[in-house]
Amino acid sequence: MSKTFFDIGLSLDGFIAGENRSPQNPMGGQAPAIHNWMFIQKAFWEHMNATGGEKDDRDGDLIRDVFARTGAYVMGKRMFDEGEPSWPEGLFKAPVYVLTHEKRQPWVQKDNTTFYFVNDGMESAYAKAKASAGNKDIRIQGGADCIRQYLNAGYIDEFTLHIAPVLLSSGIRFFDGVDKTKFSFNIINTIQSPAVTHITYAVTNHK
Amino acid sequence: MSKTFFDIGLSLDGFIAGENRSPQNPMGGQAPAIHNWMFIQKAFWEHMNATGGEKDDRDGDLIRDVFARTGAYVMGKRMFDEGEPSWPEGLFKAPVYVLTHEKRQPWVQKDNTTFYFVNDGMESAYAKAKASAGNKDIRIQGGADCIRQYLNAGYIDEFTLHIAPVLLSSGIRFFDGVDKTKFSFNIINTIQSPAVTHITYAVTNHK
Repeated sequence: MSKTFFDIGLSLDGFIAGENRSPQNPMGGQAPAIHNWMFIQKAFWEHMNATGGEKDDRDGDLIRDVFARTGAYVMGKRMFDEGEPSWPEGLFKAPVYVLTHEKRQPWVQKDNTTFYFVNDGMESAYAKAKASAGNKDIRIQGGADCIRQYLNAGYIDEFTLHIAPVLLSSGIRFFDGVDKTKFSFNIINTIQSPAVTHITYAVTNHK
Repeated sequence: MSKTFFDIGLSLDGFIAGENRSPQNPMGGQAPAIHNWMFIQKAFWEHMNATGGEKDDRDGDLIRDVFARTGAYVMGKRMFDEGEPSWPEGLFKAPVYVLTHEKRQPWVQKDNTTFYFVNDGMESAYAKAKASAGNKDIRIQGGADCIRQYLNAGYIDEFTLHIAPVLLSSGIRFFDGVDKTKFSFNIINTIQSPAVTHITYAVTNHK
Protein backbone atom coordinates (compact mmCIF):
# COMPACT_ATOMS: atom_id res chain seq x y z
CA MET A 1 0.00 0.00 0.00
CA SER A 2 1.14 3.49 -0.77
CA LYS A 3 2.74 5.26 2.19
CA THR A 4 3.17 8.93 2.91
CA PHE A 5 6.60 9.81 4.27
CA PHE A 6 9.24 12.43 4.71
CA ASP A 7 12.98 11.98 4.65
CA ILE A 8 15.27 14.69 6.01
CA GLY A 9 18.78 15.36 7.22
CA LEU A 10 19.26 16.81 10.69
CA SER A 11 22.25 18.04 12.62
CA LEU A 12 22.94 16.43 15.97
CA ASP A 13 21.35 19.50 17.58
CA GLY A 14 18.18 19.11 15.53
CA PHE A 15 18.54 21.67 12.75
CA ILE A 16 17.25 20.92 9.26
CA ALA A 17 18.76 24.08 7.77
CA GLY A 18 21.02 26.95 8.79
CA GLU A 19 20.61 30.72 8.78
CA ASN A 20 20.57 33.10 5.81
CA ARG A 21 18.95 30.87 3.26
CA SER A 22 18.54 32.17 -0.28
CA PRO A 23 18.37 30.77 -3.82
CA GLN A 24 22.16 31.17 -3.91
CA ASN A 25 22.52 29.20 -0.69
CA PRO A 26 19.36 27.11 -0.35
CA MET A 27 20.32 25.32 2.84
CA GLY A 28 21.78 28.37 4.59
CA GLY A 29 24.76 28.77 6.89
CA GLN A 30 26.70 25.61 7.61
CA ALA A 31 23.77 23.36 6.76
CA PRO A 32 25.53 21.66 3.84
CA ALA A 33 27.56 19.86 6.53
CA ILE A 34 24.34 18.01 7.36
CA HIS A 35 24.35 16.52 3.89
CA ASN A 36 28.02 15.64 3.47
CA TRP A 37 27.13 11.97 3.71
CA MET A 38 25.21 12.41 0.41
CA PHE A 39 27.74 14.61 -1.33
CA ILE A 40 30.40 11.87 -1.13
CA GLN A 41 28.11 9.34 -2.83
CA LYS A 42 28.08 8.76 -6.62
CA ALA A 43 24.31 8.12 -6.40
CA PHE A 44 23.68 11.73 -5.35
CA TRP A 45 25.55 13.16 -8.33
CA GLU A 46 23.92 10.70 -10.73
CA HIS A 47 20.55 12.09 -9.66
CA MET A 48 21.88 15.59 -10.20
CA ASN A 49 22.81 14.53 -13.75
CA ALA A 50 26.41 15.25 -12.87
CA THR A 51 29.49 13.30 -11.94
CA GLY A 52 31.00 13.36 -8.50
CA GLY A 53 31.27 11.43 -5.28
CA GLU A 54 34.03 9.03 -4.36
CA LYS A 55 31.83 6.39 -2.70
CA ASP A 56 29.11 4.02 -3.78
CA ASP A 57 28.00 2.00 -0.77
CA ARG A 58 24.88 1.44 1.29
CA ASP A 59 24.42 5.17 1.85
CA GLY A 60 24.26 5.51 -1.93
CA ASP A 61 21.68 2.73 -2.14
CA LEU A 62 19.52 4.65 0.31
CA ILE A 63 19.64 7.70 -1.97
CA ARG A 64 18.55 5.56 -4.93
CA ASP A 65 15.86 3.79 -2.89
CA VAL A 66 14.15 6.97 -1.76
CA PHE A 67 13.84 8.22 -5.34
CA ALA A 68 12.69 4.79 -6.55
CA ARG A 69 9.90 4.42 -3.99
CA THR A 70 8.42 7.87 -4.61
CA GLY A 71 5.50 8.24 -7.02
CA ALA A 72 4.70 11.88 -6.26
CA TYR A 73 6.01 14.79 -4.21
CA VAL A 74 4.42 17.62 -2.27
CA MET A 75 6.61 20.68 -1.73
CA GLY A 76 6.31 24.14 -0.17
CA LYS A 77 6.69 27.23 -2.33
CA ARG A 78 9.74 28.47 -0.46
CA MET A 79 11.62 25.22 -0.99
CA PHE A 80 10.71 25.34 -4.66
CA ASP A 81 11.88 28.94 -5.04
CA GLU A 82 15.11 28.39 -3.13
CA GLY A 83 15.93 24.99 -4.55
CA GLU A 84 14.88 25.22 -8.17
CA PRO A 85 17.78 27.38 -9.41
CA SER A 86 20.24 24.64 -8.42
CA TRP A 87 18.22 21.58 -9.49
CA PRO A 88 18.96 19.93 -12.82
CA GLU A 89 16.06 19.40 -15.18
CA GLY A 90 14.22 16.17 -14.47
CA LEU A 91 15.57 15.70 -10.94
CA PHE A 92 12.46 14.26 -9.31
CA LYS A 93 11.30 11.79 -11.99
CA ALA A 94 7.70 12.06 -10.76
CA PRO A 95 5.04 14.78 -10.42
CA VAL A 96 5.81 17.47 -7.85
CA TYR A 97 2.88 19.40 -6.34
CA VAL A 98 4.02 22.83 -5.16
CA LEU A 99 1.81 24.57 -2.57
CA THR A 100 1.63 28.21 -3.61
CA HIS A 101 -0.65 31.20 -4.14
CA GLU A 102 0.97 31.81 -7.51
CA LYS A 103 -1.14 30.82 -10.51
CA ARG A 104 1.11 29.14 -12.99
CA GLN A 105 0.84 26.51 -15.69
CA PRO A 106 2.47 23.14 -15.03
CA TRP A 107 6.19 23.10 -15.78
CA VAL A 108 6.87 19.93 -17.72
CA GLN A 109 10.47 18.73 -17.57
CA LYS A 110 12.06 15.55 -18.84
CA ASP A 111 12.00 12.13 -17.14
CA ASN A 112 8.41 12.43 -15.88
CA THR A 113 9.27 15.44 -13.71
CA THR A 114 6.41 17.96 -13.82
CA PHE A 115 5.88 20.76 -11.32
CA TYR A 116 2.21 21.47 -10.69
CA PHE A 117 1.34 24.69 -8.84
CA VAL A 118 -1.53 24.06 -6.43
CA ASN A 119 -3.50 27.06 -5.15
CA ASP A 120 -6.22 25.42 -3.08
CA GLY A 121 -4.38 24.07 -0.07
CA MET A 122 -2.62 21.10 1.43
CA GLU A 123 -5.54 18.69 1.23
CA SER A 124 -5.92 19.31 -2.48
CA ALA A 125 -2.18 18.97 -3.13
CA TYR A 126 -2.16 15.70 -1.22
CA ALA A 127 -5.16 14.31 -3.11
CA LYS A 128 -3.45 15.13 -6.41
CA ALA A 129 -0.21 13.51 -5.27
CA LYS A 130 -2.06 10.42 -4.12
CA ALA A 131 -3.84 10.10 -7.44
CA SER A 132 -0.50 10.38 -9.25
CA ALA A 133 1.51 8.06 -7.03
CA GLY A 134 -0.35 4.83 -7.77
CA ASN A 135 1.17 2.08 -5.67
CA LYS A 136 4.29 4.10 -5.04
CA ASP A 137 4.81 6.33 -2.02
CA ILE A 138 4.09 10.01 -1.53
CA ARG A 139 6.97 12.07 -0.27
CA ILE A 140 6.34 15.30 1.58
CA GLN A 141 9.59 16.81 0.36
CA GLY A 142 9.89 19.99 2.44
CA GLY A 143 10.68 22.54 3.62
CA ALA A 144 10.28 22.22 7.33
CA ASP A 145 6.98 24.14 7.52
CA CYS A 146 5.39 22.05 4.81
CA ILE A 147 6.42 18.77 6.47
CA ARG A 148 5.26 19.93 9.90
CA GLN A 149 1.84 20.88 8.51
CA TYR A 150 1.32 17.40 7.08
CA LEU A 151 2.76 15.73 10.17
CA ASN A 152 0.55 17.69 12.58
CA ALA A 153 -2.49 17.06 10.37
CA GLY A 154 -2.02 13.28 10.57
CA TYR A 155 -0.93 12.54 6.99
CA ILE A 156 2.46 10.93 7.71
CA ASP A 157 2.88 7.15 7.99
CA GLU A 158 6.63 7.06 8.48
CA PHE A 159 9.73 9.20 8.28
CA THR A 160 13.47 8.81 8.03
CA LEU A 161 15.99 11.03 9.77
CA HIS A 162 19.61 11.15 8.65
CA ILE A 163 21.34 12.44 11.77
CA ALA A 164 24.74 13.90 10.93
CA PRO A 165 27.51 14.19 13.54
CA VAL A 166 27.66 17.98 13.28
CA LEU A 167 26.34 20.90 15.31
CA LEU A 168 24.78 23.96 13.66
CA SER A 169 23.76 25.91 16.81
CA SER A 170 21.32 28.08 14.84
CA GLY A 171 18.86 27.85 11.98
CA ILE A 172 15.58 25.97 11.64
CA ARG A 173 14.93 23.33 14.26
CA PHE A 174 12.80 20.73 12.60
CA PHE A 175 10.81 19.52 15.61
CA ASP A 176 9.92 23.01 16.90
CA GLY A 177 6.25 23.41 16.07
CA VAL A 178 5.55 19.71 15.84
CA ASP A 179 2.60 18.92 18.11
CA LYS A 180 3.80 16.06 20.32
CA THR A 181 0.30 15.29 21.58
CA LYS A 182 -0.91 14.15 18.18
CA PHE A 183 1.10 10.98 17.61
CA SER A 184 3.62 8.51 18.86
CA PHE A 185 6.70 7.27 17.03
CA ASN A 186 8.18 3.78 16.86
CA ILE A 187 11.62 2.95 15.54
CA ILE A 188 11.31 0.56 12.63
CA ASN A 189 14.82 0.59 11.21
CA THR A 190 18.28 1.94 12.03
CA ILE A 191 21.16 1.85 9.57
CA GLN A 192 24.66 2.57 10.74
CA SER A 193 27.11 4.45 8.58
CA PRO A 194 30.41 6.09 9.49
CA ALA A 195 29.09 9.39 8.11
CA VAL A 196 25.52 9.57 9.40
CA THR A 197 22.86 7.60 11.29
CA HIS A 198 19.73 6.68 9.34
CA ILE A 199 16.68 6.03 11.53
CA THR A 200 13.18 5.30 10.24
CA TYR A 201 10.15 5.81 12.48
CA ALA A 202 6.55 4.69 12.05
CA VAL A 203 3.95 7.27 13.09
CA THR A 204 0.84 6.30 15.03
CA ASN A 205 -1.57 9.18 14.63
CA HIS A 206 -3.90 9.76 17.57
CA LYS A 207 -7.16 10.61 15.89
CA MET B 1 44.00 3.87 28.21
CA SER B 2 41.49 5.56 30.42
CA LYS B 3 38.88 7.57 28.52
CA THR B 4 36.69 10.44 29.63
CA PHE B 5 33.11 10.16 28.44
CA PHE B 6 29.53 11.08 28.99
CA ASP B 7 26.47 8.96 28.32
CA ILE B 8 23.03 10.55 28.17
CA GLY B 9 19.48 10.00 27.01
CA LEU B 10 17.93 12.54 24.65
CA SER B 11 14.48 12.99 23.18
CA LEU B 12 14.20 13.14 19.41
CA ASP B 13 13.95 16.91 19.72
CA GLY B 14 17.16 17.12 21.74
CA PHE B 15 16.01 17.47 25.34
CA ILE B 16 17.95 15.81 28.14
CA ALA B 17 15.35 16.73 30.79
CA GLY B 18 11.91 18.27 31.00
CA GLU B 19 10.52 21.25 32.88
CA ASN B 20 9.84 21.59 36.61
CA ARG B 21 12.63 19.44 37.93
CA SER B 22 12.84 18.85 41.67
CA PRO B 23 14.11 16.18 44.06
CA GLN B 24 10.62 14.67 43.85
CA ASN B 25 10.80 14.62 40.05
CA PRO B 26 14.49 14.71 39.17
CA MET B 27 14.06 14.49 35.41
CA GLY B 28 11.16 16.92 35.19
CA GLY B 29 8.05 16.93 33.03
CA GLN B 30 7.71 14.08 30.62
CA ALA B 31 11.43 13.36 30.64
CA PRO B 32 11.07 9.85 32.09
CA ALA B 33 9.78 8.89 28.62
CA ILE B 34 13.36 9.43 27.44
CA HIS B 35 14.50 6.62 29.71
CA ASN B 36 11.75 4.07 29.17
CA TRP B 37 14.21 1.87 27.29
CA MET B 38 16.12 1.51 30.60
CA PHE B 39 13.10 1.08 32.85
CA ILE B 40 12.02 -2.07 30.98
CA GLN B 41 15.43 -3.71 31.52
CA LYS B 42 16.23 -5.95 34.50
CA ALA B 43 19.78 -4.56 34.49
CA PHE B 44 18.52 -1.10 35.44
CA TRP B 45 16.62 -2.36 38.46
CA GLU B 46 19.51 -4.59 39.55
CA HIS B 47 21.66 -1.48 39.74
CA MET B 48 18.93 0.23 41.74
CA ASN B 49 19.08 -2.73 44.17
CA ALA B 50 15.48 -3.43 43.28
CA THR B 51 13.58 -5.87 41.13
CA GLY B 52 11.77 -4.86 37.99
CA GLY B 53 11.99 -4.82 34.24
CA GLU B 54 10.60 -7.45 31.92
CA LYS B 55 13.53 -7.56 29.49
CA ASP B 56 17.16 -8.56 29.62
CA ASP B 57 18.68 -8.05 26.18
CA ARG B 58 21.40 -6.01 24.53
CA ASP B 59 20.00 -2.76 25.93
CA GLY B 60 20.47 -4.28 29.37
CA ASP B 61 24.05 -5.24 28.55
CA LEU B 62 24.72 -1.61 27.65
CA ILE B 63 23.49 -0.54 31.07
CA ARG B 64 25.83 -3.05 32.74
CA ASP B 65 28.75 -2.11 30.48
CA VAL B 66 28.62 1.58 31.28
CA PHE B 67 28.77 0.91 35.02
CA ALA B 68 31.53 -1.68 34.53
CA ARG B 69 33.81 0.61 32.50
CA THR B 70 33.58 3.54 34.92
CA GLY B 71 36.28 4.00 37.56
CA ALA B 72 35.20 7.44 38.78
CA TYR B 73 32.41 9.97 38.24
CA VAL B 74 32.22 13.76 38.15
CA MET B 75 28.82 15.26 38.89
CA GLY B 76 27.26 18.71 39.26
CA LYS B 77 25.75 19.76 42.58
CA ARG B 78 22.27 20.16 41.17
CA MET B 79 22.21 16.63 39.80
CA PHE B 80 23.43 15.35 43.15
CA ASP B 81 20.77 17.29 45.07
CA GLU B 82 17.96 16.30 42.74
CA GLY B 83 19.01 12.72 42.21
CA GLU B 84 20.30 11.61 45.58
CA PRO B 85 16.90 11.24 47.31
CA SER B 86 15.91 8.56 44.80
CA TRP B 87 19.25 6.73 44.51
CA PRO B 88 19.78 3.54 46.47
CA GLU B 89 22.89 3.34 48.67
CA GLY B 90 25.91 2.16 46.72
CA LEU B 91 24.50 2.91 43.27
CA PHE B 92 27.67 4.10 41.56
CA LYS B 93 30.18 1.50 42.83
CA ALA B 94 33.06 3.97 42.37
CA PRO B 95 34.09 7.38 43.74
CA VAL B 96 31.82 10.28 42.73
CA TYR B 97 33.29 13.81 42.75
CA VAL B 98 30.54 16.38 43.23
CA LEU B 99 31.32 19.95 42.13
CA THR B 100 29.91 22.22 44.84
CA HIS B 101 30.56 25.25 47.03
CA GLU B 102 29.29 23.28 50.02
CA LYS B 103 31.99 22.07 52.39
CA ARG B 104 31.13 18.58 53.45
CA GLN B 105 32.95 15.45 54.52
CA PRO B 106 33.00 12.52 52.10
CA TRP B 107 29.87 10.40 52.27
CA VAL B 108 31.01 6.79 52.30
CA GLN B 109 28.39 4.30 51.14
CA LYS B 110 28.65 0.59 50.47
CA ASP B 111 30.10 -1.08 47.35
CA ASN B 112 32.93 1.43 46.87
CA THR B 113 30.48 4.32 46.33
CA THR B 114 31.82 7.44 48.03
CA PHE B 115 30.66 10.97 47.30
CA TYR B 116 33.47 13.53 47.59
CA PHE B 117 32.49 17.21 47.66
CA VAL B 118 34.98 19.25 45.65
CA ASN B 119 35.13 23.01 46.28
CA ASP B 120 38.01 24.07 44.04
CA GLY B 121 36.64 23.69 40.55
CA MET B 122 36.27 21.39 37.58
CA GLU B 123 39.99 20.87 36.95
CA SER B 124 40.50 19.71 40.52
CA ALA B 125 37.49 17.40 40.41
CA TYR B 126 38.74 15.91 37.18
CA ALA B 127 42.26 15.36 38.53
CA LYS B 128 40.82 13.55 41.55
CA ALA B 129 38.59 11.41 39.35
CA LYS B 130 41.50 10.55 37.09
CA ALA B 131 43.65 9.52 40.05
CA SER B 132 40.83 7.28 41.33
CA ALA B 133 39.87 5.71 38.02
CA GLY B 134 43.11 3.86 37.31
CA ASN B 135 42.77 2.13 33.95
CA LYS B 136 39.01 2.47 33.98
CA ASP B 137 37.13 5.34 32.41
CA ILE B 138 35.97 8.65 33.87
CA ARG B 139 32.33 9.43 33.40
CA ILE B 140 31.12 13.02 33.47
CA GLN B 141 27.75 12.02 34.84
CA GLY B 142 25.71 15.23 34.53
CA GLY B 143 23.70 17.33 34.65
CA ALA B 144 23.71 19.09 31.33
CA ASP B 145 25.67 22.14 32.55
CA CYS B 146 28.39 20.00 34.08
CA ILE B 147 28.80 17.91 30.92
CA ARG B 148 28.83 21.00 28.68
CA GLN B 149 31.55 22.61 30.78
CA TYR B 150 33.82 19.59 30.38
CA LEU B 151 32.94 19.19 26.71
CA ASN B 152 33.64 22.84 25.88
CA ALA B 153 36.88 22.71 27.88
CA GLY B 154 38.22 19.80 25.81
CA TYR B 155 38.08 17.00 28.40
CA ILE B 156 35.76 14.59 26.55
CA ASP B 157 37.12 11.72 24.41
CA GLU B 158 33.82 10.16 23.46
CA PHE B 159 30.14 10.20 24.26
CA THR B 160 27.07 8.04 23.80
CA LEU B 161 23.60 9.35 23.04
CA HIS B 162 20.53 7.20 23.60
CA ILE B 163 18.01 8.87 21.31
CA ALA B 164 14.46 7.95 22.30
CA PRO B 165 11.56 8.15 19.82
CA VAL B 166 9.69 10.75 21.87
CA LEU B 167 9.22 14.51 21.72
CA LEU B 168 9.39 16.69 24.85
CA SER B 169 8.94 20.14 23.21
CA SER B 170 10.33 21.92 26.29
CA GLY B 171 12.96 21.50 28.96
CA ILE B 172 16.76 21.48 28.77
CA ARG B 173 18.21 21.12 25.30
CA PHE B 174 21.50 19.38 25.74
CA PHE B 175 23.42 20.88 22.82
CA ASP B 176 22.40 24.49 23.52
CA GLY B 177 25.52 26.12 24.92
CA VAL B 178 27.89 23.58 23.41
CA ASP B 179 30.55 25.48 21.45
CA LYS B 180 30.54 23.88 18.00
CA THR B 181 33.79 25.57 16.99
CA LYS B 182 35.84 23.63 19.50
CA PHE B 183 35.63 20.07 18.19
CA SER B 184 34.42 17.67 15.58
CA PHE B 185 32.54 14.43 16.16
CA ASN B 186 32.89 11.09 14.41
CA ILE B 187 30.44 8.23 14.70
CA ILE B 188 32.22 5.19 16.09
CA ASN B 189 29.31 2.88 16.87
CA THR B 190 25.56 2.68 16.38
CA ILE B 191 23.41 0.07 18.08
CA GLN B 192 19.84 -0.46 16.96
CA SER B 193 17.11 -1.28 19.41
CA PRO B 194 13.35 -1.16 18.99
CA ALA B 195 13.14 1.20 21.97
CA VAL B 196 16.00 3.65 21.41
CA THR B 197 18.99 4.35 19.17
CA HIS B 198 22.43 4.19 20.81
CA ILE B 199 25.11 6.19 19.00
CA THR B 200 28.68 6.65 20.22
CA TYR B 201 30.79 9.54 18.93
CA ALA B 202 34.53 10.18 19.22
CA VAL B 203 35.46 13.80 19.92
CA THR B 204 38.38 15.47 18.18
CA ASN B 205 39.21 18.53 20.24
CA HIS B 206 40.60 21.48 18.29
CA LYS B 207 43.27 22.79 20.59
